[in-house]
Amino acid sequence: MPKQVDHRRRRDDIARAMWTVVDQRGWAGASLREVAAEAGMSLGQVQHYFASRNELLEFAVQAASDQTSRRVARGMEELGESPHPRDVVRLILVEMLPLHPDARPTSRIHAACVLEALHNESMREQIGSGMRDGRDGLKQLVTQAQANAQIDPDRDPDTETDLLLALTGFTPLLELGVVPPSDVIAAIETHLDNLFATT
Amino acid sequence: MPKQVDHRRRRDDIARAMWTVVDQRGWAGASLREVAAEAGMSLGQVQHYFASRNELLEFAVQAASDQTSRRVARGMEELGESPHPRDVVRLILVEMLPLHPDARPTSRIHAACVLEALHNESMREQIGSGMRDGRDGLKQLVTQAQANAQIDPDRDPDTETDLLLALTGFTPLLELGVVPPSDVIAAIETHLDNLFATT
Repeated sequence: MPKQVDHRRRRDDIARAMWTVVDQRGWAGASLREVAAEAGMSLGQVQHYFASRNELLEFAVQAASDQTSRRVARGMEELGESPHPRDVVRLILVEMLPLHPDARPTSRIHAACVLEALHNESMREQIGSGMRDGRDGLKQLVTQAQANAQIDPDRDPDTETDLLLALTGFTPLLELGVVPPSDVIAAIETHLDNLFATT
Repeated sequence: MPKQVDHRRRRDDIARAMWTVVDQRGWAGASLREVAAEAGMSLGQVQHYFASRNELLEFAVQAASDQTSRRVARGMEELGESPHPRDVVRLILVEMLPLHPDARPTSRIHAACVLEALHNESMREQIGSGMRDGRDGLKQLVTQAQANAQIDPDRDPDTETDLLLALTGFTPLLELGVVPPSDVIAAIETHLDNLFATT
């Protein structure tokens, strides 16, 4: 096996170990030492790939974001050719929320990194630019749907995009069992019914 | 000054020191030792009031939640007698979001504690029950407005309550500067215009 692939796998293994540590023991427990123990490596081996906790964090965030994108891409395949924008928006929202076991660790990494970003300039840049890209993509879907008369063209596309993004606010309500998953899905459907209602 | 008052003030001082530490250095830096240094006390003095980091966290969360309630109560006074439920809902949402300096530390404590709660049963209980109480209060406003024909009675009050709560999803978008405060306010107004539109 070529060395390049091996290195990449090692880095993925370490990122996965980090998610496991964050998932089981919380953010405060996610030191390089704890992650190394979880990955079954020495601290030195982990430090060979990631010089600092920060580097590992940035890699883990990117890996989490890539994983979410892959889940959305798989869902897009299932929607077939030229899917309705309502279905695309619904898919994106559902994959961003901790509604199934695969989405929970990536959602938690994301929430933890938002807090970390408040005190960490490079993380702030990384997470912020990811969010802005996500927002741009959603806004494109909204404006395209308006051009296709699937969303009322009188609605403000920025406001509607922001209201869609705000639906990720279901994350803590799901995590703490305040609103059950079925009710979250129902609320998303109601919001989308309303947005895509043209009279 | 009676001793009782002095003790209470000490606890408040320590909680405030904790917010400052969380606000400036993030959650990971908020050890009892760091909080003691910020409060200008010895570790032993802090431990006299809070035996563990957990006890301090729970106190700080309660203090943050009380502070938010006091801000809402002040806002309610300004709304005068029998305010429109739309104004009450708007006030609650705005005070829950990090839209002004006072609301930022309490919002951050809350977000950090949601993550902590995933790995801390008593915190989970405390935060979850606070969220459920908040949800009950909002739902009461929605059903009352439906009874008064201010919200379409055909709407599902649980779904509408959940969609209002989800607007707290603007928190990370505000914190990372992805959506500016004025746009968040505009989006909340649009959502409320839609909810309170009766035809």
